[in-house]
Amino acid sequence: MNPATELRPIPSEPTLRRLPWYLAYVSLLKSQGVGHISSTAISKEINVDASQIAKDLSVLRIKGKTRIGYQVDELEQALGNFLGFTASHKAVMMGVGSLGAALISDRGLQRFGLDVVAGFDTDPSIIGNVIKGVPVFDVSELPVRRKAYDAEIGIIAVPVDHAQQAADMLVQAGVKALWNFTPFRISVPPGVVIENTSIYADLAVIYNRLSACRR
Amino acid sequence: MNPATELRPIPSEPTLRRLPWYLAYVSLLKSQGVGHISSTAISKEINVDASQIAKDLSVLRIKGKTRIGYQVDELEQALGNFLGFTASHKAVMMGVGSLGAALISDRGLQRFGLDVVAGFDTDPSIIGNVIKGVPVFDVSELPVRRKAYDAEIGIIAVPVDHAQQAADMLVQAGVKALWNFTPFRISVPPGVVIENTSIYADLAVIYNRLSACRR
Repeated sequence: MNPATELRPIPSEPTLRRLPWYLAYVSLLKSQGVGHISSTAISKEINVDASQIAKDLSVLRIKGKTRIGYQVDELEQALGNFLGFTASHKAVMMGVGSLGAALISDRGLQRFGLDVVAGFDTDPSIIGNVIKGVPVFDVSELPVRRKAYDAEIGIIAVPVDHAQQAADMLVQAGVKALWNFTPFRISVPPGVVIENTSIYADLAVIYNRLSACRR
Repeated sequence: MNPATELRPIPSEPTLRRLPWYLAYVSLLKSQGVGHISSTAISKEINVDASQIAKDLSVLRIKGKTRIGYQVDELEQALGNFLGFTASHKAVMMGVGSLGAALISDRGLQRFGLDVVAGFDTDPSIIGNVIKGVPVFDVSELPVRRKAYDAEIGIIAVPVDHAQQAADMLVQAGVKALWNFTPFRISVPPGVVIENTSIYADLAVIYNRLSACRR
């Protein structure tokens, strides 16, 4: 156990979810050649209390200077490192239909540290395909391939009625974290990380707010 | 103003975000030929209190029967209608790079009522392309095309340093709701709906939980 790792504070989920906003803004400032930024200035742009921002950024263990603020370069790097975006995290894709293939094609995820190394499917017309360099295998090969790639993350992009089954297979094959793109609520054994995306819920919120505006 | 519309309760955002989970489960039950389902049975599967589920479902104004529960067909249809997934909502895509093209290619979004009718970009190598039947135009054509299509929703999939500019252009062109896929916190005028996806924040949470498990 690395003592430095042990000392690192575990941030709350709301903090973790705000940090990428700061990173996006700081990266923009960097591209504009800005040298320093204060939490007050971030606050004006991001619409989060400056005191909350200072508290969130304290998990990074870097210090802003009075009146000058944080050094933009240092803050960007510290945020990227802390969030895990600068490391490479191997993932396998379960289901290479429309959504799975789209997610593999979005190499933008790589800039956030996600390296999809292989896809798995049951459809003979999909198995054997290579999408942006990522091979698609028969799902029966999952345990062996997962181990060979040493992939820790399993992305679930199968039809909703196969979501739980896909999750069970991924966990069985040794995956430690699941990223669920289906709207199905998956059950996982203790110790397995599960994160659900909300893109369908996002759509429901958009539609509802739009129809409320029309009243 | 339709009196029926006026009477429809406006659900809270947490309720709105849970309803798609119920829909996914109810659709699964329907595919399995199940006729009725109680909120208690949904609760066991979804891990939400049965009383909360009953309260959430009360916005649908359909009645479950004592001991039998809700009729699965009726519940699925009511959920889909209420969430806006059974209607068609026209959207334009700002930015047809890796992510924008991937989102257009994911025709699965159509099953949730999202109809991406056109893409817009500044890159001459992308303008003029047609992706799964969706044409990509020069961004200068946005105002005219937006109006011709009567698209209410603008999806933002541009690089983070162009996110605010893209949002401003969409609002200027008459879009009423923005769906922001960048991690940048966009400002919009009052009355414009803004919904931010959290896929990068999801990744940060996954990486952090994985590294916490390793300790």
